[in-house]
Parts: sequence; structure tokens; C-alpha cells
Amino acid sequence: MELNAKKIDLEAGEHIVILNKKDVERIGLRSQGRVSVSKEGKTTRALVETSESLAEEGEIALTERVIEDIEADEGDELTVKQTARPESVEHIREKLEGEELSTHAINEIIEDIVEKRLSDIELSAYVSGIYSQGMNNRETKDLINAMIKTGDTIEWDEHPVFDHHSIGGVPGNKITLLIVPIVAAAGMMIPKTSSRAISSAGGTADIFETLTDVTLSVEQIKNITQDVGGVIAWGGAVNLAPSDDMIIRAEYPLRIDPYAQVLASVLSKKKAAGAEYLVMDIPVGANTKVESRELGRKYARDFVTLSEEIGIETKCALSYGGQPVGRAIGPAMEAREALMALEGKDVPSSLLEKSTTLAGMVLEQGGIRKGKEEAERLLESGEALEKMKQIIDRQGGDLEISSSEVEIGNHSKDIYSTEEGYVDNINNGHIINIVRATGAPHCKGGGLLLKKKKGDKVEKDEPLYTIYAEQENDLEDAVKMANHLKPLQVEGMILEKHPDLKKV
Amino acid sequence: MELNAKKIDLEAGEHIVILNKKDVERIGLRSQGRVSVSKEGKTTRALVETSESLAEEGEIALTERVIEDIEADEGDELTVKQTARPESVEHIREKLEGEELSTHAINEIIEDIVEKRLSDIELSAYVSGIYSQGMNNRETKDLINAMIKTGDTIEWDEHPVFDHHSIGGVPGNKITLLIVPIVAAAGMMIPKTSSRAISSAGGTADIFETLTDVTLSVEQIKNITQDVGGVIAWGGAVNLAPSDDMIIRAEYPLRIDPYAQVLASVLSKKKAAGAEYLVMDIPVGANTKVESRELGRKYARDFVTLSEEIGIETKCALSYGGQPVGRAIGPAMEAREALMALEGKDVPSSLLEKSTTLAGMVLEQGGIRKGKEEAERLLESGEALEKMKQIIDRQGGDLEISSSEVEIGNHSKDIYSTEEGYVDNINNGHIINIVRATGAPHCKGGGLLLKKKKGDKVEKDEPLYTIYAEQENDLEDAVKMANHLKPLQVEGMILEKHPDLKKV
Repeated sequence: MELNAKKIDLEAGEHIVILNKKDVERIGLRSQGRVSVSKEGKTTRALVETSESLAEEGEIALTERVIEDIEADEGDELTVKQTARPESVEHIREKLEGEELSTHAINEIIEDIVEKRLSDIELSAYVSGIYSQGMNNRETKDLINAMIKTGDTIEWDEHPVFDHHSIGGVPGNKITLLIVPIVAAAGMMIPKTSSRAISSAGGTADIFETLTDVTLSVEQIKNITQDVGGVIAWGGAVNLAPSDDMIIRAEYPLRIDPYAQVLASVLSKKKAAGAEYLVMDIPVGANTKVESRELGRKYARDFVTLSEEIGIETKCALSYGGQPVGRAIGPAMEAREALMALEGKDVPSSLLEKSTTLAGMVLEQGGIRKGKEEAERLLESGEALEKMKQIIDRQGGDLEISSSEVEIGNHSKDIYSTEEGYVDNINNGHIINIVRATGAPHCKGGGLLLKKKKGDKVEKDEPLYTIYAEQENDLEDAVKMANHLKPLQVEGMILEKHPDLKKV
Repeated sequence: MELNAKKIDLEAGEHIVILNKKDVERIGLRSQGRVSVSKEGKTTRALVETSESLAEEGEIALTERVIEDIEADEGDELTVKQTARPESVEHIREKLEGEELSTHAINEIIEDIVEKRLSDIELSAYVSGIYSQGMNNRETKDLINAMIKTGDTIEWDEHPVFDHHSIGGVPGNKITLLIVPIVAAAGMMIPKTSSRAISSAGGTADIFETLTDVTLSVEQIKNITQDVGGVIAWGGAVNLAPSDDMIIRAEYPLRIDPYAQVLASVLSKKKAAGAEYLVMDIPVGANTKVESRELGRKYARDFVTLSEEIGIETKCALSYGGQPVGRAIGPAMEAREALMALEGKDVPSSLLEKSTTLAGMVLEQGGIRKGKEEAERLLESGEALEKMKQIIDRQGGDLEISSSEVEIGNHSKDIYSTEEGYVDNINNGHIINIVRATGAPHCKGGGLLLKKKKGDKVEKDEPLYTIYAEQENDLEDAVKMANHLKPLQVEGMILEKHPDLKKV
């Protein structure tokens, strides 16, 4: 049926159009109905909501994102059709039943996801199926290829292209801001695309955005990398393996990370970005994505095997994820700590150790011997800092940036220890929740600075950490949460005394 | 935060409220955010959509169903809070991981479903988990109890209460319209609540609605049953095990029927309606819910066992589901055929056979010997017809109703056989799709009348069946689909002739 376009100012999770009740009955739509909306060969899909007043008979009210998809204007005549239930829902059901999916089935599912043909219910069943029943290596490889094929790819004029990635979960992991300038300072190409925070307190893109622009086009990523060796860009601004972000839409509220989907998510984006060599950081620890060394090793093996099959040479490092990396957590806080490390200022040696080890692995993939030593040299000599400034400058930031200029939220509060002893444990999940309560990553200045880390001696009433926020009420919320969660556990050397202690 | 209520004329699958963009940022809502909306102790949940104009700052636009939930009026001050991610999502994840769920976990999931705390994504993950990993009998029993507990129950003043149910999937299954009056005519109480069509061409409630009102209150169900012995009411109008309808919201688009959910769906509704004795019809056949006799037997065993545990005595019959029951499919068509059977007019003997056998099983549960014979007697004597008229009358219909007055769609077309032979197969799924294309169950007069059934001899150009519709264009759609799907397969006695036939 033909309907006239009308813009409506409304935003929802899914693509939405509003039709008049009578038109909906005429089209024969059932509940949760989906339609295709076309204008001159451009087609998109949307979920139908109905109204008697927001759309008159013969009208279709379109939200901004739907309008963009098909480049529609007010008053345009659009063709609206009820969409058949996508074929791929059959395959999703097969996966729920534990069947192995064919290459064809996987291609159909990913195409339907990218073309927005699946409803939330269908998408969630896909994610649930992969989580519940898993995928073998053949299926995972097909999934990677399907995810690459349904998006753009970067074709490089120069080679080789290096990359690194951390599968995340450990707070304060700002190592990309050290690795990229070190590798670029060695004359190698490392175009790093990063995500924004999904469940963390700040993704690498959120962190780097406090220093410079991260919304770059594919052309900019290519040019800057070929000129200065490195770039740190927000992956969401380019259309590399776009199905990934759509799948995350269902994974995030369920807090599930299907194993095969993690492998495919990382490798499809890397391959689409043109990476030929990859170093993976797999943090292992309680309350991170990978809680056991055994699971870490399984990831490492599968990353290496699958990479090889799609033409990427990958090395993996299992890293310590038992507490935050460095002292700073939160976008601006982390950017500042990374700059301090590049400036040679006092930062935890564990942060330097981790960054130079991983950067060294990349250097060795490029044929440089004693990679870690060379990475340390590039850091200590200030060459990495110079490179970082060039990158920041080319991405639109200030060439003369320094760590002292990074703006941190100006409301802060110290949290004190209520007892004397040693820091026995730091709960990563609690730290992330407190930092999110400060408004981060939306408020870039919100964060937390650890004054004590695991094993440190603490006096009673000595500060354990400081919380920062941009708004007073966010600070209060975060402090309240901190007092409730108690993320740092302090223990004396004597844990308990019983009347019968002497008998033991 | 406090916001002022404003009505908005919009309908969607989920509960929806529209907030101003600035308020959404202030509340700190993330994508797919959900809020609780309260007025004086009444609370509901809704999904947030945002706008800059449909809701001003300080306003909340509410859809009709949200308004009903909390009895809000235009201008009311409502308390709006971001809802925490429901605890039960953890349990849904456990099920996806293959774990057995505790009683507590199952109660939490069902409560969250009934309280509308789960998003489509979360609900779909629940259904996917049960489908993918199953539930043992202990979990299923807990599920039944949780589903009963979260809704109303009917308390009867008289006993015993009988019931019957068909788990469906076979088209034309209008047997309830025979069983209820037969059982009631025997002086027993059989209050039957039925669903509307989900994936079929017409549920029992849709069918009976062509003869009388089916939207009855619990009081009406009780009174009519205690007065005349039987009732056929729409289950959706009463709040018996309401979680069932909400779960179907996710099952229907995925076309999955998790085994444990089927058991729980039936038994929770029966127990909530106060049934003490139950006869189950389990049709077995290709393109029905139960495709093998083995699965049918498993259902039968589990229905009997679980019923016993919740205090219902159940008997099951596996019935022939290899083709439609009777000749008529579609709401008005089926109502007419059922009335014809009660009036003693010519209907397929298989319909009578099935109805009297199942009605006989109910009679025997009530202590009547030779139940089938007694059922046949009640049917042939006209006592069942008299009882049916009383029921129709008491539900608000015409006491003097007769089959000749039932209105069928007045656009019709015969479909002819293109060859000579025997009807070898009738595809249930295709029949349902054709009838749905006529506009049924929404258009009650749409339907299909089989002139030939399995095994019947057919001449070339002889009519196979007639399609009826209320609208000419619906008829055309249905005829087009019929010509495409060819639901009746006609085969000659010689299937193929090859050049080498003689060698075989």
C-alpha cells in the first residue's frame, strides 16, 4: 500500500513507524507486525505502532532513523508492505534445538540482522541459541565471514597492517593509549578501532575522546595511519562488521557473551579493518569476562586457529585481571594516567609492564628483536609521547597536550579504610558500578583513583581511593554506592580469634 | 522523578511511555531503558521512547494500556523511576546454561513476566532457554504453581468440576462445541475456558463467538455453569494464569512451543479454573503440534503425572490429526458444522466419533458406565442440542438458533481438481494458511469447506473444496494462495511410468 511520509519526533530502541489503525487493519497486520518501507529502490524495515491521531489514514509517521535509511522527505509517497516472517527464524530455531547451522543459514541470519528484518524477540532468540548451544569452529568461521561480508572493509595501499585488541572486562585497562604510539613510533602501521563502553566504565574510544576526536571516516583512518603510523578511532563511526553492534543490543541487557560470538565479534572487525597481524590481550580474573585461566587458554587457542583460517597471524597473552590496571578508572582519569606514563611521570609499574610486553609482541611480529626492550626504549626516550601528540593532532586535538591539562570532574571525595590491615581484594565489578554511578562514561570527568592496591598496607582512617564526578549529586550517588559495595577488602593478619584458638 | 501525565494515542506490542529527551538524560536512562510509573501505590512498568515534542520537559505521555494499569488521569503527578535489571534475568541465564532452576527462581521469573518487568529481549531469552534446555518434572510443577499463583482462581460452590482440552494444531477441531453440551446434558458441570486463535484459523472462543458472547466474568462462568451445567468462555477475559498469554507473545513469532511450557500452560489454566477431572485430546499428525505418536505418548504420560501432583485426575486420548476434523474450517463454518451435528444433520461420522468418544471419557470420569454410548444417546435424542441452546441463551445469544442461520462469508469460490485419482494427503498447515488469508479469525465468515477428504475418489475438474470470505479481495488472496499451495494432493493408482517399467 502507498502511504504519505510524515516526520515524527520519537526515538525508540528499534526502528519504528506509526500507522493509522484503519490502515493497519487494511494491511492485515498482526501484533508485533513488521513492515518494509520503500522509496525508489531504498528499503528499510520497521516495527509498527498504531494510532488514530499521530498518523491520519493514508499517512505513515517515520522516526529520524527510518527517514535517514531511505532518504525520505515529508509528503513522499512510500510503499509499505507487511514483511514475511524472515526465513532465518527457522535457522534460529534449529540452533535452539542444538543443530549445526549451515553456511547458508548463518549468512541468512546475519543478513537479516543487518537489514533490520529481525525483531527484538527474534534477535534475542538468536543470541540465546548461540549462548545455550554454542557453535563449532566451522560455524564460527562462517559467522566471521558473514559479519565481514555485510559491512565495509578497509583496503590498504601499504602493508603490513598490525593491530591489537583486549577482550576486556578489567577496569582501568588504558593500555591501547600506550601500545599504539609505541608501535607507531617504531615505524609500523597500527590503525586501532575501538568501541565505546558497553558494560564497562569507559571504552577506549570514550577514553581517547577526552584528548581528541575519535569519530573518523575510513579515509581519515587510512590517511592518518599511513602518515603517522597510528590512529585510535571509534569503530561505531565506520561500517565495519556492523552486525556486531546490533547483536550487542540483545547481549547487553541479558549480560551474556556467547563464546562463539566473542570470537566472531573481534575477528570480523579486525579482518574488516584490514589487520594482518594481531596481538590479543586476554585478562583473566574474577569479575572479568574470562574468569579462569583454562577458559583464557581456550580463547587463545581458538583465536589463533580461527585467525589463521581468515588470514590473520595472531598471538595471545593471558594477562593478570585480578584488580584494575593502573590506578585510574573513568574516561578522563584513564586518559590522564596514560599520558603521564608516556611523559615518564610516576605511574604503577604494572601498567608499564603490561603495555610494553604487549607492544613488544607487536614489534616482534614486525621483525624487531627483543620487542619488550625496544618498547621500553621508545617509551623512555619520549618517542612514544611525540608520536602520541602527532596522532592526537591529526585526529583534531591539541598537539601540545599534557597530562596536567586533562579535565577531571571537580567534585571529589576520599573514601577511608575503617580498619587497619592489608588490601586483600579489589572487586572489579564493584569498581565499575561505582564509576558508572559518577555518570561515566557519559560524563567523561567521572571516575575513581585508587590510592591503595592489592597487598598494600593500610592504616585505619587512611584513604583507600578518591571518587570524582562532574555533578555533586552524581558524586553523592557514587559515594553511597561505594559505602554499600565496599570494593576494597582490607584484612588484618589475624583473621579471627576464637576462645579455643590455642587448641588449633 | 515526578512527571505530569498526558495521554497519547499510540499502541505498541509492549507497554510504552514517552519522555522528553532531557528528562531521559536526567534520569540517566540507557538504551532500551525501562521505568516504573506509579500513582498512589499502583505501579506499572513500561519501555521508554523519547521525544522533544510529544512530551515536554516534566511530562510523561502514556498509552491507553498504561493509563488503565495505574488508573491515571491527564495531569496526574506520577512517580517515574529507572527500574533495576530484574533479578530473574540471572535465572534465565542459568537456564540457558543448562542449569536446573530452583522453585524460587521460577517464581521470580513468572512474577516478573506478570508484572511486565521483562523486556521483549528478556522474555524471548526465557522462552528460548526453556525450549533449548527443557525443564524436568519438578521444575514444570513449580512452573504450573507459579503460573496459578500469579492470577485469579475460581472457587466452586458445587463439585465435582469436569473439563476437557485439546492441545490443538489440527484444523477444524470444533469438538468442544459438542463435548460441552453432551456433558452438561448428562447433568455434570463443565466450565470450559478457551483461547482465541494463536497460530490457527480460529480458536474455540472465536468459533463460539459467532453464536453468542464469550467474554464472561468469573461470576458469570460460575453462575451459568451451576445453573445449566456448561459454559464456553474466552479465557482471555478472565485473569486465570495470565502469564500464559504474555509468554505466548514471544512463542508465537518464533513458532516454538517449549514442551514444559505446553504442559504448564494447559494445567495452570485448568487448575486455576477449578477443574478436578480433565480429559485431554492430543491430536497426532504431520503439521500439528504433535507430529509423532511417541511424542503424543510422552505428553500423555506427563499430563497424567503432573495433573495428579496438582490434584487433577486426567485421562488422555491420542487422536487422529492427519487431516482436518470434519469438513469445515473457519470460525462461522465450524460453528455451523457443530450445530448441524447437534441437530442430527449430515456431518462426517469421524467428527461424531471423536466428539462422543472424548465426551464419553468425561462421562465415565463422572461415574457413568459405557460413556460413549451415553454420549451418542444424548446427541441423538436432541438433549445435547437443547443444552447447547440453553448455554448460548445464558451467554447472551439466541435461544432459537439453528445452523441454517449462521452467517458465512458471501463471496465464495470452488477449487477444482486438475487430475483424476484419490485424495492422498491434506496438508493441515496449508489449510490453515489459506483460511487465514480469507481474513479469519478476524473476519468470522472466512473459511473453507472440504468436499473431499483423504481416500475419496476425485474426477478431473471435480470440486475439491470451497473457499469463503467476507471481502472479495480476501477471497482473491486466499484463492491465489490455494492455487499456489495445493493443500490436497490427488494421486492416481499408477504413480509413474518409466520406459523401463516392465523390467521392475
